Amino acid sequence: MATDAMSPKITVELLRQLRQAMRNSKCITEPIQAYIIPSGDAHQSEYIAPCDCRREFICGFNGSAGTAIVTEQHAALWTDGRYFLQASQQMDSNWTLMKMGLKETPSQEDWLISILPENSKVGVDPWIIAADQWKNMSKALSSAGHSLVAVQDNLIDAIWEDRPPRPSTKLMALGLKYTGLTWQDKITALRGKMAERKISWFVVTALDEIAWLFNLRGSDIEYNPVFFAYAIIGLSNIKLFVDSKRLLDPAVRQHLELDSPSQPDLSVQCFPYESVFTELQAVCAALAPKDKMWICDKASCALTQVIPKAHRSAIPYTPLCLAKAVKNPTEIQGMKMAHIKDAVALCELFAWLEKEIPKGTVTEISAADKAEELRSQQKDFVGLSFPSISSVGPNGAIIHYRPLPETNRTLSLNEIYLIDSGAQYKDGTTDVTRTVHFGTPSDYEKECFTYVLKGHIAVSAAIFPNGTKGHLLDSFARAALWDSGLDYLHGTGHGVGCFLNVHEGPCGISYKTFADEPLEAGMIVSDEPGYYEDGSFGIRLENVVLVVPAKTKYNYRNRYSLSKYLHLRDASSTPVGVSIAPMI
Amino acid sequence: MATDAMSPKITVELLRQLRQAMRNSKCITEPIQAYIIPSGDAHQSEYIAPCDCRREFICGFNGSAGTAIVTEQHAALWTDGRYFLQASQQMDSNWTLMKMGLKETPSQEDWLISILPENSKVGVDPWIIAADQWKNMSKALSSAGHSLVAVQDNLIDAIWEDRPPRPSTKLMALGLKYTGLTWQDKITALRGKMAERKISWFVVTALDEIAWLFNLRGSDIEYNPVFFAYAIIGLSNIKLFVDSKRLLDPAVRQHLELDSPSQPDLSVQCFPYESVFTELQAVCAALAPKDKMWICDKASCALTQVIPKAHRSAIPYTPLCLAKAVKNPTEIQGMKMAHIKDAVALCELFAWLEKEIPKGTVTEISAADKAEELRSQQKDFVGLSFPSISSVGPNGAIIHYRPLPETNRTLSLNEIYLIDSGAQYKDGTTDVTRTVHFGTPSDYEKECFTYVLKGHIAVSAAIFPNGTKGHLLDSFARAALWDSGLDYLHGTGHGVGCFLNVHEGPCGISYKTFADEPLEAGMIVSDEPGYYEDGSFGIRLENVVLVVPAKTKYNYRNRYSLSKYLHLRDASSTPVGVSIAPMI
Repeated sequence: MATDAMSPKITVELLRQLRQAMRNSKCITEPIQAYIIPSGDAHQSEYIAPCDCRREFICGFNGSAGTAIVTEQHAALWTDGRYFLQASQQMDSNWTLMKMGLKETPSQEDWLISILPENSKVGVDPWIIAADQWKNMSKALSSAGHSLVAVQDNLIDAIWEDRPPRPSTKLMALGLKYTGLTWQDKITALRGKMAERKISWFVVTALDEIAWLFNLRGSDIEYNPVFFAYAIIGLSNIKLFVDSKRLLDPAVRQHLELDSPSQPDLSVQCFPYESVFTELQAVCAALAPKDKMWICDKASCALTQVIPKAHRSAIPYTPLCLAKAVKNPTEIQGMKMAHIKDAVALCELFAWLEKEIPKGTVTEISAADKAEELRSQQKDFVGLSFPSISSVGPNGAIIHYRPLPETNRTLSLNEIYLIDSGAQYKDGTTDVTRTVHFGTPSDYEKECFTYVLKGHIAVSAAIFPNGTKGHLLDSFARAALWDSGLDYLHGTGHGVGCFLNVHEGPCGISYKTFADEPLEAGMIVSDEPGYYEDGSFGIRLENVVLVVPAKTKYNYRNRYSLSKYLHLRDASSTPVGVSIAPMI
Repeated sequence: MATDAMSPKITVELLRQLRQAMRNSKCITEPIQAYIIPSGDAHQSEYIAPCDCRREFICGFNGSAGTAIVTEQHAALWTDGRYFLQASQQMDSNWTLMKMGLKETPSQEDWLISILPENSKVGVDPWIIAADQWKNMSKALSSAGHSLVAVQDNLIDAIWEDRPPRPSTKLMALGLKYTGLTWQDKITALRGKMAERKISWFVVTALDEIAWLFNLRGSDIEYNPVFFAYAIIGLSNIKLFVDSKRLLDPAVRQHLELDSPSQPDLSVQCFPYESVFTELQAVCAALAPKDKMWICDKASCALTQVIPKAHRSAIPYTPLCLAKAVKNPTEIQGMKMAHIKDAVALCELFAWLEKEIPKGTVTEISAADKAEELRSQQKDFVGLSFPSISSVGPNGAIIHYRPLPETNRTLSLNEIYLIDSGAQYKDGTTDVTRTVHFGTPSDYEKECFTYVLKGHIAVSAAIFPNGTKGHLLDSFARAALWDSGLDYLHGTGHGVGCFLNVHEGPCGISYKTFADEPLEAGMIVSDEPGYYEDGSFGIRLENVVLVVPAKTKYNYRNRYSLSKYLHLRDASSTPVGVSIAPMI
């Protein structure tokens, strides 16, 4: 990224301009006393495009999580423990750092209530605040006599002179060879699920769900092969909202059958990205009294509120999110191929490291670059799936480490080296961590490595009933560490997309229970326990693994629960017992 | 219980009377089109007194869970899979059984909406519906144009001619020898917690919390040594609502210092049980603008709604619930003594069984009676802590079995015998399950027993960081069963009170995550994996266990999180690692 991570951004003038905008009748109907700048984009993406880095623009802090609030007198940023140091270095003295998780740190609501004059208005862009967050904030402010107001034009955009344009990269159509299912089949299965639940419309806002549904990929956001779009799916309509320039490509037109749809109810109507709001209003205006519309409860407040409450069915996970999580045989085969290619590149990397390290010329950054170079030589390589974590010795203990010129260490025969990296290939997404020592590790390092390896193996050897939630497997990964009085402060695994986002809901393996839909055969998650000794070393052992049917002695007495997922396969073929299997 | 479990109750006349009351202006301000009769009492008790068995009175079904709804045309009862058979046998043809958990069964809300005429009023007694349930039901009905209305006088009570009076048993004051802390110390600690969170008042509605706080016990409800009461605790007031006859006892007067309080702010003001509503109204009328009042979100709608929203702080677990869960050294010692006495009684039982079974005269009922007789000979025995589950062969596979004359089997040398039983002693509460075979078990029975035993041992050998949630231990209990394709459909453990309720929140060990506050040294839970072969046998192995500080090699690097519980001990003495230890 362009910002130098370690020098504070000077924000005096920007804050003056923002405060002027907060009073200016051209931007807003009446003055607001505070303005909230969340981290995200309009699609709740984990990684965001440069044009959406509004919170970084106003305060300088470029970590992945944080919310800024500016009032007439104050400017404050909330972020969590991973980022206290970085935020304090990147922000100037106009900003107060609010350290989340510390007892003395007020919540955003409490802080606002404590400093605002009576009957204040707090503004926020309704497109980048999720509906459930809006609800909580609005409730808290109202109870203290204030109000939360939607400011339609983003005030940061109004003062951001050289704001980059929204990316509109070339779309890539994926054929059956990669997807296993046509987009038409996916739409038909989705409509079946909608009809079953008496739902007439479904508003799709998550970028990876749209990419998966239409078998299209883009490169609008680094590391995530998605593209900016919305979709509104009806029982006989398909409305796709995407920059119209992208649809001039004949391959895309043919893929979507734009010029000659094979069936009328599978004809895709295309609209400009920006017109989703007015088009959704039009759809809502024409609803019959009993019509219900699905929208994710994490969708933007702006779109959610277009749907009248009586017609709105807000759901925590959409059927597309659930369907996407259970990979079909073609996707599984593609993920296996991607992991084989990735393994070849990593073998080459480790052979190269073994030769080069003794020369003293390999650094965290050059090793990561070499890994990327070797991966890029593999077939159907598209890019990395996340910034490589390449770390030596004490840097390995920083869980979200990313080497920078000022922290870059040289690989040696004396320190542990941890590399957590992965790539996007057209047939699949990889994510793998290896921890190695090119000399002789200490007894303590070997002991810790053994505990982590035992945990990794315990998860990858687990057998359990199909439909078990991932949190039940988390302690298998920790038992060996716990017995010796050690632990690690992160989850054990996350869902992985197939040539999609490397972090994907709705399943995972974690002591936290928020992304914890039942594990089912066909799901792909990571298995990555670790141990981190502050100031000394880090160990993490990660494979991407697949949930597969398991043969057990008594087969869980054939008790089988109907899958809640959108399968195209016969539900009676759902396996009763499952186990974890390596991808390759 | 008085009702014969297996013959249906004739409800024609009762339903006629209830429907008349639903239209009668003496009972209600305007006619209602439906009336909801929940299971519970006004204190969200798991076990209830006979006067509160209103749902059983109207429909005949006497299981522990179920909700009845009566409209002009229909009468329906919702209950879960444990009770489908029993409910269908106990209800006459006027009732429709709604089998919860089956796909085709409508929710109460959906059913009401599907059958009610437009703009209907649905009545419910606000004292026996929890605030959070009221909110959900009210929202659903409103969205369909109906309304949920509070009917102050219970309509079942109005037609229940020989309704038993509310019990008002003798109160028992527990001295320091049993409690380890005076009630004055507990009030002072509670007020410290209230002051810390800027809370002025706390409305206590759960019976076991009141009993624990005041070091008093009663016998108003079978198996649970509690008494009907409410309490409202202020920073300088103590208001106790209890039948005034009970306070004539000099021992109780002295215990509560009613005649000569040692300190003015520890003086207990006593009010009749029924006056809690008007007294709470008076307290609320005198609140300062910033005053906040705690109430559990599972408290009755009636009491919750007395507190104006701006002053109400509804909490999922009260500080008393949390404090009560972490036993102090005296309570731990008492629980150990109770378990030693209980073990003596069980040893005597098994010796007696070994001698008597070959004669062919011992039945499930007579064995349970013998167990009670032997326990009653132990010091400070008060009563059973729950109805004994004494089951032979196939009856053992019914998890909530209770022997009845028509199901009673004879113990023999050929079938497995499972006994899950426990008692209340003045020093503690017990709950233990043993599964035995007095002849030669089959290879398959031995195999299953071994898996269950392995699971039991895995939990009781677990070492983990203090503050780990119980759901993370659940899979340790299942791993051996899972490997062979077996499982059991209940949680692994529940919290246990100290001479209080045998099922106690807020912690447990379960794949379900609803009673799952972090486990901490001093907490007491059960460890009871099982395996059930329908129609054949049941195996369950249960001990009550204690979370104790553990010495581990690396002591979790001294990372220690401040306990959220109301401790009187120094927080810095909180252990870092813990393990499970048997009570004796």
